[in-house]
Amino acid sequence: MALSHLSRIYRPQFGLLTDLYELTMAAGYYDQGIHERRAIFHLFYRTAPFDGRIALAAGLPLAIDLIENYRFDADDIQYLGRLKSSDGSALFKEPFLNYLQRMRWTGDLDAIPEGEIVLPNEPLLRIEGPLIMVQLLETALLTVMNFSTLVATKAARIKAAAGNDTVLEFGLRRAQGLDGGLTASRSAYLGGCDATSNVWAGRYYNIPVRGTHAHSWVMVFPDELTAFDAYAEALPANCIFLVDTYDTLEGTRNAIRVGNKLRERGHEMNGIRLDSGDLGQLSIEARKLLDEAGFPDARIVASDSLDEYAIRELKAEGAKISIWGIGTRLVTGHDQAALGGVYKLSAIQDTTGNWQSKIKRSETAEKSSNPGKLAIRRYYRDEQPVGSQLFNELSGEPGNSVIANGKVHSLSGTCQPALQPVYRNGSRVSDLPDLHRSRALAQKNWSDWERIDWNRFRYGLSPELEAEKAELLRQKA
Amino acid sequence: MALSHLSRIYRPQFGLLTDLYELTMAAGYYDQGIHERRAIFHLFYRTAPFDGRIALAAGLPLAIDLIENYRFDADDIQYLGRLKSSDGSALFKEPFLNYLQRMRWTGDLDAIPEGEIVLPNEPLLRIEGPLIMVQLLETALLTVMNFSTLVATKAARIKAAAGNDTVLEFGLRRAQGLDGGLTASRSAYLGGCDATSNVWAGRYYNIPVRGTHAHSWVMVFPDELTAFDAYAEALPANCIFLVDTYDTLEGTRNAIRVGNKLRERGHEMNGIRLDSGDLGQLSIEARKLLDEAGFPDARIVASDSLDEYAIRELKAEGAKISIWGIGTRLVTGHDQAALGGVYKLSAIQDTTGNWQSKIKRSETAEKSSNPGKLAIRRYYRDEQPVGSQLFNELSGEPGNSVIANGKVHSLSGTCQPALQPVYRNGSRVSDLPDLHRSRALAQKNWSDWERIDWNRFRYGLSPELEAEKAELLRQKA
Repeated sequence: MALSHLSRIYRPQFGLLTDLYELTMAAGYYDQGIHERRAIFHLFYRTAPFDGRIALAAGLPLAIDLIENYRFDADDIQYLGRLKSSDGSALFKEPFLNYLQRMRWTGDLDAIPEGEIVLPNEPLLRIEGPLIMVQLLETALLTVMNFSTLVATKAARIKAAAGNDTVLEFGLRRAQGLDGGLTASRSAYLGGCDATSNVWAGRYYNIPVRGTHAHSWVMVFPDELTAFDAYAEALPANCIFLVDTYDTLEGTRNAIRVGNKLRERGHEMNGIRLDSGDLGQLSIEARKLLDEAGFPDARIVASDSLDEYAIRELKAEGAKISIWGIGTRLVTGHDQAALGGVYKLSAIQDTTGNWQSKIKRSETAEKSSNPGKLAIRRYYRDEQPVGSQLFNELSGEPGNSVIANGKVHSLSGTCQPALQPVYRNGSRVSDLPDLHRSRALAQKNWSDWERIDWNRFRYGLSPELEAEKAELLRQKA
Repeated sequence: MALSHLSRIYRPQFGLLTDLYELTMAAGYYDQGIHERRAIFHLFYRTAPFDGRIALAAGLPLAIDLIENYRFDADDIQYLGRLKSSDGSALFKEPFLNYLQRMRWTGDLDAIPEGEIVLPNEPLLRIEGPLIMVQLLETALLTVMNFSTLVATKAARIKAAAGNDTVLEFGLRRAQGLDGGLTASRSAYLGGCDATSNVWAGRYYNIPVRGTHAHSWVMVFPDELTAFDAYAEALPANCIFLVDTYDTLEGTRNAIRVGNKLRERGHEMNGIRLDSGDLGQLSIEARKLLDEAGFPDARIVASDSLDEYAIRELKAEGAKISIWGIGTRLVTGHDQAALGGVYKLSAIQDTTGNWQSKIKRSETAEKSSNPGKLAIRRYYRDEQPVGSQLFNELSGEPGNSVIANGKVHSLSGTCQPALQPVYRNGSRVSDLPDLHRSRALAQKNWSDWERIDWNRFRYGLSPELEAEKAELLRQKA
């Protein structure tokens, strides 16, 4: 039997990483001779995750990787050639498959950079290119942008709850697949975590890695004190003792005993970790024991189903925890396991090269997609964000106002475009900032946006875009 | 700037795919000279997912891949050699790193085969080998087993709700990472889905792929009828028309118009898809339109935030849906985004080669881990499961009884071991059944176990294991 995919599947072409309907549509566009008409799609979400108002943009370098390596090799093409329609005929015809194999990225991409804030209905990505290619990329782009943005946002929320404390991401064992774990560790660091337990992520993304020992270490030895002694002997400068294998406060006393011996040998115990029980109360009692024993600098790490809500509660209770280890609830999103990002066609060129705006009608005008080639202007006063305007670049420069809840609001302050050019005609036109710089940006942004008074912050469509949308909806009614 | 990991990271060695604490513990074991003592760990979950009582075992071929390819190359070792302790000294010493680079799998593995049922506290995997190796494998094994079992179980629940209807898995765009999507598609198929939209999964796992078109296809054309006509022209034997881009019932009428033209050309329309609105009511009205127009065999596909609960509700309302497209809520677990599987040391050999049982104490005896080298006996009467016994193989053959809720219950019927040998001394001793056979097994098992009367089903520890556990807990008290 062949082994599973893990050791052989990731290769430098991602053509098949798509839903079948993207390929059948691509075949249809090809058959109709419209496959190279230029089209614009936007990737955006409608509702902010975790009952919040904003999300932290993440995933762009992964999207770039997918776009640059979106192609089909001979084996992919052979596989597609074997697929059948319901009547047993070949699903895809030869000329289309030949076209696929030759196809290369030639489009434009604009994006909200990693670490910037993105509001509902604002494009995280704006992609323009031959209809067939931008259609085929839909699924893979959604996969990486949805998940990266979800976890980065969760991490920013957790870091905000933790304040000046250290946050460690511990989630690999509960992640959704190996890449789920790797992308989660990356996004968690981007969103504000200080380090990860995931060594793969440490190597590939140059993220600081942290960790000391588990219960199994303690259980291997005849008793806890012997176990701590042995660990201190082997790794004297890396001692955070997990104290809850048998009894948390007795464990703390054992840690102190070993901490004293370490000190005689010229090393300092770094701290202890609590992993079960009433973390607030135990941390207060353990802190007292540590302080009384002369270890005021030994830190208390806590882990056990933590998230931003649990951290805030524990802090309110006066917990003496200064390092938070966060696993499952960070790397999976937990209370929200997916960002509901979508990818919608908003304009296509007709045979004469004129752009035609497109709209996907939904139950309400608000839920319906926005037409055109969208751009975003962010307004700031005293460097604080005060508003955001979505407009259609194809309709010229908009004024300084937006429609929100049916009313016109004028915007003032300095304004900046939120979308940055990434590709023009298939060539990359910007270097991406590295993960560490984006992380610093994210922390500044999150704290700026946390201070927003949402009763005064104005965002929505430009009046021109609102009118165009209303007219398109009227035509489709 | 370097590209992200997607195009370059998956390679045939997985040594770094672990939490740092596994490596620091490994270094400690090495330092203490106990790294090659034989140890036994079990991977199990404590609470069944989705408020159920059972889970569908999945992930074993992925675990095998990880085990066979768990090694470190020179670059991995160099990376580890650069890591620092808190005082700036090297975290790992040279002899340990040399050992890591030479380390190869030499252990035993027993597992519940894919497609079998696993109860809480029963080992999905039992792994025995040199302490250092079985410790290092913890994180990666948990990652693949937790996620695979979670999604397979969700799929089985959804398929059970759908009965004889077809279930399609559509989740890639909302999956947690590329491998999250691929592993989810695999597990969903194993658990009972009939096909996937994920073409990567289709190629690599030989899973049937399905899909026709999205809203964007309709939006590209001047109107819906033109769009359907064009699709029918391009792919006449693959027509399931998505009818809700503008108005679902008008869309159904357009599908019928095109269905009639298709029929003149010798093709049958396969059906329509509803993706928004009141799916129950719309399906009833669309069914009526299709039947009246002479398309009684055209099927109605529904998609839109569906799961086992929504399917049961829609069926209770009399919805005329016979194909269910399930995305986010299947591939992420949704209401439960992680199976809380754990991996616990349960025995280790002392220097004389005698096994010492180990236990991880928790708040209650039930939550505390089970000691020894665990095995499972399943009891059947008339081929229906009637009980399950967990016992310690190191303590000899147990009797035919279990302790449940403090009482002894005798078990009768034929009994079979649930764990199957996979490796002995590093060599694989069983071929794994292929995914398609495991899927058939899963469907039979799920339907057998759905009929269990849980008031009469007896499962728990053998009295001998219960006594050993009580004695170990007493010693640790």
